[in-house]
Amino acid sequence: MSDWNPDLYKQFEDERTRPARDLLAQVGSIPAGPVFDLGCGPGNSTELLVGRFPGAQVIGTDTSEAMLASARERLPGCVFEQSDISAWRPASPAALVYANASLQWVPDHARLLPRLFAELAPGGTLAIQMPDNRDEPTHRLMRETAALAPWAEPIGNADAKRTPMLGVGGYYDLLAPLAARVQVWRTAYQHPMADAAAIVEWVRATGLKPFIDPLPPALRASFLEAYTRRIAEAYPAHADGRLLLAFPRLFIVAQKAA
Amino acid sequence: MSDWNPDLYKQFEDERTRPARDLLAQVGSIPAGPVFDLGCGPGNSTELLVGRFPGAQVIGTDTSEAMLASARERLPGCVFEQSDISAWRPASPAALVYANASLQWVPDHARLLPRLFAELAPGGTLAIQMPDNRDEPTHRLMRETAALAPWAEPIGNADAKRTPMLGVGGYYDLLAPLAARVQVWRTAYQHPMADAAAIVEWVRATGLKPFIDPLPPALRASFLEAYTRRIAEAYPAHADGRLLLAFPRLFIVAQKAA
Repeated sequence: MSDWNPDLYKQFEDERTRPARDLLAQVGSIPAGPVFDLGCGPGNSTELLVGRFPGAQVIGTDTSEAMLASARERLPGCVFEQSDISAWRPASPAALVYANASLQWVPDHARLLPRLFAELAPGGTLAIQMPDNRDEPTHRLMRETAALAPWAEPIGNADAKRTPMLGVGGYYDLLAPLAARVQVWRTAYQHPMADAAAIVEWVRATGLKPFIDPLPPALRASFLEAYTRRIAEAYPAHADGRLLLAFPRLFIVAQKAA
Repeated sequence: MSDWNPDLYKQFEDERTRPARDLLAQVGSIPAGPVFDLGCGPGNSTELLVGRFPGAQVIGTDTSEAMLASARERLPGCVFEQSDISAWRPASPAALVYANASLQWVPDHARLLPRLFAELAPGGTLAIQMPDNRDEPTHRLMRETAALAPWAEPIGNADAKRTPMLGVGGYYDLLAPLAARVQVWRTAYQHPMADAAAIVEWVRATGLKPFIDPLPPALRASFLEAYTRRIAEAYPAHADGRLLLAFPRLFIVAQKAA
């Protein structure tokens, strides 16, 4: 994939930050040790962690240099490191491993989550939020449009970039035998959007990237046009003229015994 | 229905209070004026309101004298008034009308919600949380068991006690034309429970009441036994031996223009 666009991403930052806040609100007190923001993006979630744990060393990681540059500008006092979550290991046991909207890009959750949990200090917490919108019209219509000529061949199996989700029960089963307490829940946020183009802009910054990145400019434009037309049909206008973008997200908070 | 049992209700108070906190977390600043907790139960949500708005006059209302007595004991400094939400009107415009897990018992949401919104002072907020679990196994199995002899006749149409829900989009449509901002979302909490009997105890304090209240003791016992058996089949044990009770709830926060 091409690198991420921090400006496009920030456009919806307020709405995007709410799940990060909701996740953090379920994290209790943490022991001494570093706090990690895995997949920190432009640092909006990192900023929440610094505000909540002002005495802790907070370290953000991301694969994208553009995102890390944006995060460093935002929080000059924090450490930001380029790192792939698949290979990430902390130098010392973590007080908190926080991964907001990042693990959906990392493969093999059945191995990954117990491994991340093992990096916690006693009493530490693993806190995860992931989009769970593969079955929403936004994502169903991406796949349907990408299956059509002339886009199918250049796009290929873009959907395979996304890691299969295990469901709230599956994640509970992975962590409950290891943890002192596991909380899982799923929230379907409803974002009021001006029109179909605004919905496309939203997903363009994340889920749509693997679909449009492989396309040359002309095919990209025609794909976006076809996709936007389908989105307009799937999301009718509400009483105030706006569209409601349903965005389900899955949350996991697992605490290690002290 | 018989009066509510505050002790049974309090058993699950910690888990029950989380939605109340999640609702309150989305309420911003409020103008001068009284804060109302409509359907305050034993006062757990009222306590959250007092903590959040220490300078405000906080008034709890409920139809149940047992709940009001429990709430008065908990919060001697607050005013608690017996009142039916259908007929409730504040003496002066409200800074906040907060209704946590109560409006599902009040009919005609299409009229009720705009009426409650009209009681707000400029800049005031209407904040609502309601269980949205009619399609969950807990509630489906209540109806299925209640349709069988010998319970069907004495129970009657217990399900009619519950007001039909309008869905996140329906509530948005009611309030968006009136409000400066409307947020709607739906969260499916997942409560780890020891066994099927614990799930039955949970719903017995609320949703099951209209089903078992009309039953004489012997029929009530046989109904609960048959229902518990079905619940055990519908909720398999997880990796730690516990059952996950999925409990979806719908949230609405609407702010009036200042």
